[in-house]
Amino acid sequence: MEHQQPLEEAKRTSLHIEQIHKLSTQLLPFYHLITPENTLEEPRINAQLQMLVGILHELHPADVATVLENLPPKERVLVWKLAIPEEDGDVLLEVSDAVRESLIESMDTQELVAAVEDMDADDLADLADDLPANVVSEVLKDRDEEERAQVQAAMSYDDNQVGAVMDFETVSIRADVSCEVVLRYLRRFDRLPDHTDKIFVVDENDVLQGVLPIRKLLVSDPEAEVGSLMARDIVTFHPHDDVEDAAGAFERYDLVTAPVVDENNKLIGRLTVDEMVDVIREESEADMRNMAGLSEEEDLFAPVWDSVKNRWIWLAVNLFTALVASRVIGAFESSISQIVALAALMPIVAGIGGNSGNQTITMIVRAMANTQISKLQAWRLLRKEIGVALINGIIWGSVMGVISWLLYHNVGIGLVMVAAMTLNLLLAAVLGVLIPVLMEKFGRDPALGSSVLITAVTDSGGFLIFLGLATLFLL
Amino acid sequence: MEHQQPLEEAKRTSLHIEQIHKLSTQLLPFYHLITPENTLEEPRINAQLQMLVGILHELHPADVATVLENLPPKERVLVWKLAIPEEDGDVLLEVSDAVRESLIESMDTQELVAAVEDMDADDLADLADDLPANVVSEVLKDRDEEERAQVQAAMSYDDNQVGAVMDFETVSIRADVSCEVVLRYLRRFDRLPDHTDKIFVVDENDVLQGVLPIRKLLVSDPEAEVGSLMARDIVTFHPHDDVEDAAGAFERYDLVTAPVVDENNKLIGRLTVDEMVDVIREESEADMRNMAGLSEEEDLFAPVWDSVKNRWIWLAVNLFTALVASRVIGAFESSISQIVALAALMPIVAGIGGNSGNQTITMIVRAMANTQISKLQAWRLLRKEIGVALINGIIWGSVMGVISWLLYHNVGIGLVMVAAMTLNLLLAAVLGVLIPVLMEKFGRDPALGSSVLITAVTDSGGFLIFLGLATLFLL
Repeated sequence: MEHQQPLEEAKRTSLHIEQIHKLSTQLLPFYHLITPENTLEEPRINAQLQMLVGILHELHPADVATVLENLPPKERVLVWKLAIPEEDGDVLLEVSDAVRESLIESMDTQELVAAVEDMDADDLADLADDLPANVVSEVLKDRDEEERAQVQAAMSYDDNQVGAVMDFETVSIRADVSCEVVLRYLRRFDRLPDHTDKIFVVDENDVLQGVLPIRKLLVSDPEAEVGSLMARDIVTFHPHDDVEDAAGAFERYDLVTAPVVDENNKLIGRLTVDEMVDVIREESEADMRNMAGLSEEEDLFAPVWDSVKNRWIWLAVNLFTALVASRVIGAFESSISQIVALAALMPIVAGIGGNSGNQTITMIVRAMANTQISKLQAWRLLRKEIGVALINGIIWGSVMGVISWLLYHNVGIGLVMVAAMTLNLLLAAVLGVLIPVLMEKFGRDPALGSSVLITAVTDSGGFLIFLGLATLFLL
Repeated sequence: MEHQQPLEEAKRTSLHIEQIHKLSTQLLPFYHLITPENTLEEPRINAQLQMLVGILHELHPADVATVLENLPPKERVLVWKLAIPEEDGDVLLEVSDAVRESLIESMDTQELVAAVEDMDADDLADLADDLPANVVSEVLKDRDEEERAQVQAAMSYDDNQVGAVMDFETVSIRADVSCEVVLRYLRRFDRLPDHTDKIFVVDENDVLQGVLPIRKLLVSDPEAEVGSLMARDIVTFHPHDDVEDAAGAFERYDLVTAPVVDENNKLIGRLTVDEMVDVIREESEADMRNMAGLSEEEDLFAPVWDSVKNRWIWLAVNLFTALVASRVIGAFESSISQIVALAALMPIVAGIGGNSGNQTITMIVRAMANTQISKLQAWRLLRKEIGVALINGIIWGSVMGVISWLLYHNVGIGLVMVAAMTLNLLLAAVLGVLIPVLMEKFGRDPALGSSVLITAVTDSGGFLIFLGLATLFLL
């Protein structure tokens, strides 16, 4: 590994990807000729192979994961075969779900067992759903009773529960020992768990009493007793807690690790900040995806057919709502045939409503990611958004009204334009607040398809308002 | 503080907000009667005031920040006056930029000096831009030369550079001492800097030699020399590095702290994971905002006029592009007056293009947040998206074609519908890839207004394709 100059870190990874992409594309025709020792007979091609192997062996598993995610399927399998087998497990944990599936498919039982057999219980539980059943049972066979129980416990939680992301590597001590004793106890470990920044203080029944931050242990008098130093006022989690709430608490209270306890306050595991960072990233990515109407995380280079399947639902919803909008217009066909200018102006009314509604809904979805919105706040937000819509409607409606008047030499069309734009902006404001608030109230993700929904309403609504007003006042 | 049961953390904060919101609204009329000791004469009202003060004093500064962000302006100022003055500085650091401005406006010079005078150099530098100049100079007067230099250094970097978020609380040692000596040295500190998970090993010129993880220090033989234990292969950052790249490295390599060095590898500061978590959150929020066309972070309860200003640019862009689309339709007015069904069907063609283009662009913007996309990849993505568009065009185009045929008893309209939908989906695919890739190539944020832009293209393009084909084949 060479990380002395991570200046422009992302650009360097991108260079690696381009180089690996090129080398692997060149090596693809010789894929079946590669020996188990990763060599090829033809010297020129073998030199390329060795260069690729060399680059891969210098990369951190997390970087190998990024590279794999950014390669097309065939090249991905080739590179995966050449990566360091000992790091396979780490890479599998890092890649996105979609890519993980494709990697696991390319491995046989023996390779899979080798990749995951040394994994910690919590990591194994993370992967278990994606692994063939015989691999899981094979690997569990070699574990002791406690670890098997841990794997099964971790697997029993939903992906969005704390229990699914906690690990079991807790270091705990009693309250009645001195710092000196703690230091001596720690020295008996070969290594401390990753991210250990505090030691959990428990009683004889493993009930959590407090935590001793390592930072405090290091500056304290060796004679001092743990009980007198430990913090008692601590943030704890339960395995059934929502993992996004836990990530929010990590963010607010700047935590590195935190204990997970059962209903009797018995210590059963811990959460670490690296998992929480992943949760925060995934949460906001899911919000973006949901707003745009992508059902699931999509492998960037997924086969065309997989992408079609991932996107079809929201396209279908969109087509249905567009059909509704189309029927709204259809109902006014006789008005349009009398004043054909209406056909040209109606998309402006619909468009500004959609744009403005999306601004409102994005702001609220973003705010909801941090805290819940109370009824009192929802009312106040509604009043504010209606105010914004009124001002925008009058300003932009007037601009468009004057333009329409000049284009079509018809004051009536201009006035209808002002009124329709203002009304559609009001509709967008009301629904831009109500859609996410109601989604949340009914236990749905407020981001889910909200952009598609608001656009549907402002399209049909915009056409109805504009054509309706025009029919009433202009014909 | 009471954090024993952070079960449903977010819900509890929301309860606090609602209660604080109600209490502060009731207290607003008595605001000017509140004494400097936070009491009121009227016993019933005073009881409410004391209840509010009690709740606020139990909250963590980060929670106070969340509460303030979720209160309307007047209530916010009242609550802010009642919060614990000693925590004012911490709260100011936690709130969003928009809210911070409103809080600082409500404080006089003396209060501001009191709030920030005990801050670390890096935190002071964070706030300095928002503080009145006389407050900054007042506070800097009391600092020593080194700290003044640190504040000025931190202020000299852009917000998106590592230098702006690093802190100066580094603990460093020499490579030729034993662990025993290190432990004794650490014990002389009153407290270690937050998040300290490693000690920096430097030579006599402060040039970074390696790092000694605390986890390693604790399990090592006290006689062992630091030089033989320290990691030399470390991730370092430069103050001019991009802060989002740094956050990405923290995420990939699971870091808690990392050293910041100058061009001679001299240690000048450090980055901590809590700052990086904020960067990750802000980055994805900025992407969402940019896609929707919100210029800046918006205070949820900002005055109506501030919101109007924050949103007007993209609304104006949208109106302009809608006007272009309208002129495209205008050019086909004679076709529409002959077949008025065209007016009802054209928004379907435009709508599906916009929806599909947004799916593509969201996926690519999301992928770009993690790594750069190379030319080779862009080509491949383009081919894939074209494939997806073709399949979707043929499937959904045919569905709509049949529906249009049945609705209007005209095979020609059905066939034009199939062709127009397929072509507009292809247009959406090509521009859904090209817009973010070109934005990035020209050094712009690929998310910036990309949703507004793709919708503009698929609207005008959709109308042109559909009405053009109809004019050619149906008239």
